[in-house]
Amino acid sequence: MKRLSILGSTGSIGMQALDVVRARPEAFQVVAMAAGGQLDLLTEQVREFRPQLVSMGRREGARELEERLRGFPVKICYGAEGLAEVAAYSETELILLAVVGAAGLVPALTAIRAGKDVALATKEALVMAGALLTSEAAARGVRLLPVDSEHSAIFQCLEGGGRDALKRIILTASGGALRHVPKARLASVTPEEALNHPTWNMGKKITIDSATLMNKGLEVIEARWLFDIDVKHVDVIIHPQSIVHSLIEYVDGSVLAQLSPPDMRLPILYALGYPARFEHAFPTLDLVRVASLTFESIDRERFPCLGFAYQAVEMGGTAPAVLNAANEVAVELFLAREITFGQIPEVIEAGLGEHRPGDGGSLEEILAADREVREHLSRTYRGKGTHIS
Amino acid sequence: MKRLSILGSTGSIGMQALDVVRARPEAFQVVAMAAGGQLDLLTEQVREFRPQLVSMGRREGARELEERLRGFPVKICYGAEGLAEVAAYSETELILLAVVGAAGLVPALTAIRAGKDVALATKEALVMAGALLTSEAAARGVRLLPVDSEHSAIFQCLEGGGRDALKRIILTASGGALRHVPKARLASVTPEEALNHPTWNMGKKITIDSATLMNKGLEVIEARWLFDIDVKHVDVIIHPQSIVHSLIEYVDGSVLAQLSPPDMRLPILYALGYPARFEHAFPTLDLVRVASLTFESIDRERFPCLGFAYQAVEMGGTAPAVLNAANEVAVELFLAREITFGQIPEVIEAGLGEHRPGDGGSLEEILAADREVREHLSRTYRGKGTHIS
Repeated sequence: MKRLSILGSTGSIGMQALDVVRARPEAFQVVAMAAGGQLDLLTEQVREFRPQLVSMGRREGARELEERLRGFPVKICYGAEGLAEVAAYSETELILLAVVGAAGLVPALTAIRAGKDVALATKEALVMAGALLTSEAAARGVRLLPVDSEHSAIFQCLEGGGRDALKRIILTASGGALRHVPKARLASVTPEEALNHPTWNMGKKITIDSATLMNKGLEVIEARWLFDIDVKHVDVIIHPQSIVHSLIEYVDGSVLAQLSPPDMRLPILYALGYPARFEHAFPTLDLVRVASLTFESIDRERFPCLGFAYQAVEMGGTAPAVLNAANEVAVELFLAREITFGQIPEVIEAGLGEHRPGDGGSLEEILAADREVREHLSRTYRGKGTHIS
Repeated sequence: MKRLSILGSTGSIGMQALDVVRARPEAFQVVAMAAGGQLDLLTEQVREFRPQLVSMGRREGARELEERLRGFPVKICYGAEGLAEVAAYSETELILLAVVGAAGLVPALTAIRAGKDVALATKEALVMAGALLTSEAAARGVRLLPVDSEHSAIFQCLEGGGRDALKRIILTASGGALRHVPKARLASVTPEEALNHPTWNMGKKITIDSATLMNKGLEVIEARWLFDIDVKHVDVIIHPQSIVHSLIEYVDGSVLAQLSPPDMRLPILYALGYPARFEHAFPTLDLVRVASLTFESIDRERFPCLGFAYQAVEMGGTAPAVLNAANEVAVELFLAREITFGQIPEVIEAGLGEHRPGDGGSLEEILAADREVREHLSRTYRGKGTHIS
């Protein structure tokens, strides 16, 4: 029985993780949970999974939750402190970090410092503070287990071959919702169009990131830290079917790939159960029915965000944190119809361009860089663009 | 520096293995060789690789070789005894067994009994005597390393995941030279048509086996022994590009695949170098250029030989040895134009049908069954069919 804490239990990954736990009650137990909002859903989750500790985003939410769960054996907390309490909860063996965006960084560090293994569904934490998180994890013998399907694929492929013989990582990208939109129309697509992902059913932020390919850029940086590899050995190719989740190439030219239907419950189950593999009842792969797996190169002009990611790694220090913050602002502005889809790369480029990277050695410095670029970009863009309908 | 013996050095696999050694002189040294014939080529190979011990198929050949290599520091032997001497040579660390067909069985057993690791390019040995070879290898802590690209793929995929979580093996088949020949024409294709393999450049026997899919049948049996798996969990699918060399499915639905260009030097290098991976200068995989990997189910009526393999495993004991012998006879008869392509399954079925399987526990029993079915089928078919032009 592995004792889990789920940070972000009401989000897309959090709910799928609970699905996995539900299917394997003899293997997993949820001892703590945290969610930003969604009081109704969280109340249900607490009643079903009976964690000992729950954290809500805000005080009022926590009070309302307490009201609803009167007499129920659970401790309720809230805010950044509550999140930290859940992340460091002594009863926990493994934290599933599924908080959207930069908000995952502090709990990730808290969990690592408490000596807890972390299953990372939040790529932003590693993008912002990869050096810090990986060095603190190494110092404490803490495992960072990838949940992203791509990194889970790489992790699984690398299990046998030995890290030393690794030559190249090939991340696959579905190409997102807008792969077939003509270039001329791309700048003006609506949030609804960009949110209509062809193969994966995910949260809003990551779905927009898929449409801009910034998601893949963040994954390149994530791979850099998870697998300690120079990004010049990390390639990205388009694979529209989302069946091959990523590949590795060894020095001898042998390529290993991990495949499965596009269902996040599989990499979640793998991360939660690692190193054991558990049987499950999810649909399995039928290659004859899939019939064809296709691969294409990426048009870097059409998707400039991917290039920004490589550029931020090159700049080093706090630059990846700035890239991430600028992207979060841009996605927010786009979803609020304050900027066009075509302006997303513009906002990110402005963020990176303005920034003088510090060395990014401390959490404080990273958070300051993050805050600074958010304020700067908000001042420049928020409420300035024509509201787009 | 790993000291190798190459049995079958003048064959297709043997020559490619020497190519691998030639490219990595600091990693591999050939200390012994054996070949059936091809005196000119063998003489050259001995001069280049300078083994300490060489065996030829026949006495006359050995004498001629001695003549040519007068003054050269090499011991020359011949025949079954010579082959056994090479297989058990004390200086050897790893035997590459690349002798065609049933002839590989005795040297395989000799090498295992001498405590030498064996890289198996000859699938027939495991097909004939899988239980015997694997139990003797296990008793002596001898490694059986697959060289077949399919089994190398499975072996590589399994390296990390742990054998216990294995659920299914999926062998890929190119479909052979005759995949596009209409069913009505299939029975009457010529040896030249059947030898024209679309993706792999191999020896004659295995190329005909590819055309009948008996090669895949033998591989199913080979997988049964190499990976200790029930053949009902071994599937075969058509993959015409020969890029995905095979796949494994774990109990959690995760599928691992091994990919590379169709070049036997890669699995040979992997088997010779195992557990290390070596860099090389062979062409590597460019998935964007490959563009599409396709998969189809197998028409079992069109390719009855595959079914015979599963049937032989079901029958157990000496039945797989009989299947193998009957197939070798059938391929020989076909190449000699004594039977049609359509008669190959007929000959094999006749061989299996006549046989009362013994338990196959001893080498003697297996060899007797092999001999018996060869004699029987030769009596029935040789010189009886119209000579086909």
